[in-house]
Amino acid sequence: MKIYNFSPGPSILPKEVFEQAAQGVLNLNGSGLSILEISHRSRDFTEIITKARDLVRELLDVPKNYHILFLSGGASTQFLMSAMNLLPSNGTAAYLDTGSWSSKAIKEAKPYGNVDVIASSKDRNYAYIPKGYKAPSEALYLHLTSNNTISGTQFHEFPEVNIPLVCDMSSDIFSRPVDVKRFGLIYAGAQKNMGPAGTTVVIIHDELVGQSERILPTIMDYQTHIDKDSMFNTPPVFPIYGSMLTMQWIKDNGGIAAAAERNEKKASTLYAEIDRNSLFDGVVDKEDRSKMNVTFVMRDVANEAAFIDAASEAGCMSIKGHRSVGGFRASIYNAMTLEGVEKLVYVMQEFERANG
Amino acid sequence: MKIYNFSPGPSILPKEVFEQAAQGVLNLNGSGLSILEISHRSRDFTEIITKARDLVRELLDVPKNYHILFLSGGASTQFLMSAMNLLPSNGTAAYLDTGSWSSKAIKEAKPYGNVDVIASSKDRNYAYIPKGYKAPSEALYLHLTSNNTISGTQFHEFPEVNIPLVCDMSSDIFSRPVDVKRFGLIYAGAQKNMGPAGTTVVIIHDELVGQSERILPTIMDYQTHIDKDSMFNTPPVFPIYGSMLTMQWIKDNGGIAAAAERNEKKASTLYAEIDRNSLFDGVVDKEDRSKMNVTFVMRDVANEAAFIDAASEAGCMSIKGHRSVGGFRASIYNAMTLEGVEKLVYVMQEFERANG
Repeated sequence: MKIYNFSPGPSILPKEVFEQAAQGVLNLNGSGLSILEISHRSRDFTEIITKARDLVRELLDVPKNYHILFLSGGASTQFLMSAMNLLPSNGTAAYLDTGSWSSKAIKEAKPYGNVDVIASSKDRNYAYIPKGYKAPSEALYLHLTSNNTISGTQFHEFPEVNIPLVCDMSSDIFSRPVDVKRFGLIYAGAQKNMGPAGTTVVIIHDELVGQSERILPTIMDYQTHIDKDSMFNTPPVFPIYGSMLTMQWIKDNGGIAAAAERNEKKASTLYAEIDRNSLFDGVVDKEDRSKMNVTFVMRDVANEAAFIDAASEAGCMSIKGHRSVGGFRASIYNAMTLEGVEKLVYVMQEFERANG
Repeated sequence: MKIYNFSPGPSILPKEVFEQAAQGVLNLNGSGLSILEISHRSRDFTEIITKARDLVRELLDVPKNYHILFLSGGASTQFLMSAMNLLPSNGTAAYLDTGSWSSKAIKEAKPYGNVDVIASSKDRNYAYIPKGYKAPSEALYLHLTSNNTISGTQFHEFPEVNIPLVCDMSSDIFSRPVDVKRFGLIYAGAQKNMGPAGTTVVIIHDELVGQSERILPTIMDYQTHIDKDSMFNTPPVFPIYGSMLTMQWIKDNGGIAAAAERNEKKASTLYAEIDRNSLFDGVVDKEDRSKMNVTFVMRDVANEAAFIDAASEAGCMSIKGHRSVGGFRASIYNAMTLEGVEKLVYVMQEFERANG
C-alpha cells in the first residue's frame, strides 16, 4: 500500500532525496566513502555546504548583505540565540504571540531585555493571527512565527512595521516567496520543508551582527559562525547534506514559485472538502488558515478515532491533531503530493457516505 | 581500490552501519517510511532512542544513578553547558589543559566561575599528559579531555582526585572500558566512535543535576533534557539512529573489551613501525601516546608530501597532520581495521626501501 505521510515534523521529504541520500550514505559521489565518514573540512563536504548556502540564496533571493548559516540544533536554540545577540539588556523587542512556539520564544528572550508582547491570539486558543497592533517605536525588532504548526494558522501578509522582522520560519520556509529585505533575521529548523532534523538555517542581515554589548559564549555568537563559514565546530554533516539535496529538488521542480503554486492547490483542495463535508469543521479563521498544517475537527467527536483508523487503512498516516487542539492535523509540506491530499479527501468523502 | 579512511573526524564508521543506515533512509524496518521523515514522537523513533540509551548504559556499564542524554551540537556546546550547569559564580572548578579542545573548554567556562587551570602541557606543544598536580580542595570538579586528537595524546590513567571528573570523551568514548563512577559528567560528540556528526551523548550523575543557582536558558539546562527524555525539542533523529546502529555493532563485535583489544593491537602495530622505521619519529611522549590518533613526523620534512601521496595511492586517506603539529596523523578509531593499519605500515616500509 502506498503511504502518505502527513506527519507535522520531522515530516515527508521527496522520494528522490531519500534515494540520493541513501546513495550518499553508501558511496558519496563515487568517492568510495560514505557521507557519514568524511571530514567536514574535506573537499566533498565543503562543496556540499557551499551548494546548500548558494541554494538558500537563490531560492529565497537573499540579498548579498545577508549571511546564511547552518547551525546545530533547532528553533529552540534560536529562541535564545536571537535574543542574546539582538536584544541588549536595556533594549526593547516586540513579540507576537501566535502559539506554543511563539510563547517559547518569548520566554527565552525575557532574561535578556525588555520583551513587549504587542499582540496575542491566546484568547481563542490561537485560532487566528492578530491584526491591528502597532510596534512600539523603541522596539529593535518584531519577532513572529510565520506558521503555527499546532493551531494551523499562518501569516499570509507579514506585519507592516518600520523595524526589522525576526522570524521563526521553521514550518513554512521554502513554501512560498518571501521578501527577505523586510527581515533582520530568519531562522528555520530543517525538519519540515528543508531536510532531515538536526540543522537550522539562519539568514541574518549584516548590520544586525556584532551589535551586542553582551559578552556572548563563542558558540552562541552569530559572528563566530559567520567568521568560520558555519565550520567553527563540526557541523551536522548529514542533515546539511540532506537539506542540500532537498533544496536542489525544490529548484529542479520549478523553484519557490512552483512550490507555492502546488501548496496553494493542495491546501485549497483540502480546505474545500473540510468546508463541504457535513462531518467536519475547520478549526481556525478562514483568512488565517495555514497552507502547511491543516487543522480540522469532527462535529461528532465520538467518530474521530474511527476516522483516524479509516485514514490509516487508506495509507494516510499521522493525521491525529495536537492534544491542545484535538481533531485532526494534516501536514502538507512541500513534498506532499496533490495525490496524497486527494486520497485524504477521498477518505473524508467515503467516511461521510458511511456515517453521514 | 580499497580505501582506508584515517580521517580525524568525522571519521570511519563500520561498513555494516553504512548499509543499515542507507536501508533506514529508504525504508525503516519495513515501515514504508524513511528514517528522515518520521516524527521524533513516533513509536519507531522512540524505540531507536531508547535502544541507543540502553546501549550506552550496557556498553559503558553506566550505573543507575546516571542520566544518559542525546543532545544537539557537539563538544563545543558542552564546554559552555557543563560550566553553566555545574559551576556556580562563586565556585571553583579545576581544569587540565592538554590541547586545543581543553583550552576551548577553559575559555568557555571562565565567564561562569573561578576556573583554576591546575596543569598544562602547553610548554611542549601538548606532546605529553601532565602529571603530579593536585586539585584544589575547594574545586567542585576536575575537567579534562581524555584524548587529544590534534597532538595525539591520551590519558591512560584518569586523575586520582577526590572530586568528580568532568570529561570530554569525544574522541575515545567506546574505545576502552571506563569506570563511570569516577565521573560526574561525561560528554562526547558522536563523530568519532559513536556515529554520524550532529549529536552528543551526555552521561551525568544524578546529584550534579539541578544544583545550579543560576537561571539557565531552558535548552541549556540538563534538567530540561532529563525531564523530557532528550525530547524537549526535535532531536537530531538521523545522527541518533546512526549512533544506535554503531553501538549495536560494537556490542555485536564483543563489546568494549573486544574493541579495546583491537584498538590496542592496531596502535601497537603502528607505533612499532614508527619506532622501527628510520624515516619517521613519533611526536609525543611514549607513555602518553593516543590509541586513537597516532601522530608522527618525517625526519626529512622535504619528503612529507611524497609520503602522503604514496599513502593516498595505496588507499590510505587523510593522514596529513594538523597544521599545529605537522607531519602525519593516522586516526584509527574503532571502525578502522587492523588490515588498514597494516596497509599503512606497508606503505611506510615501502617508502623506507625507496627513500631510506
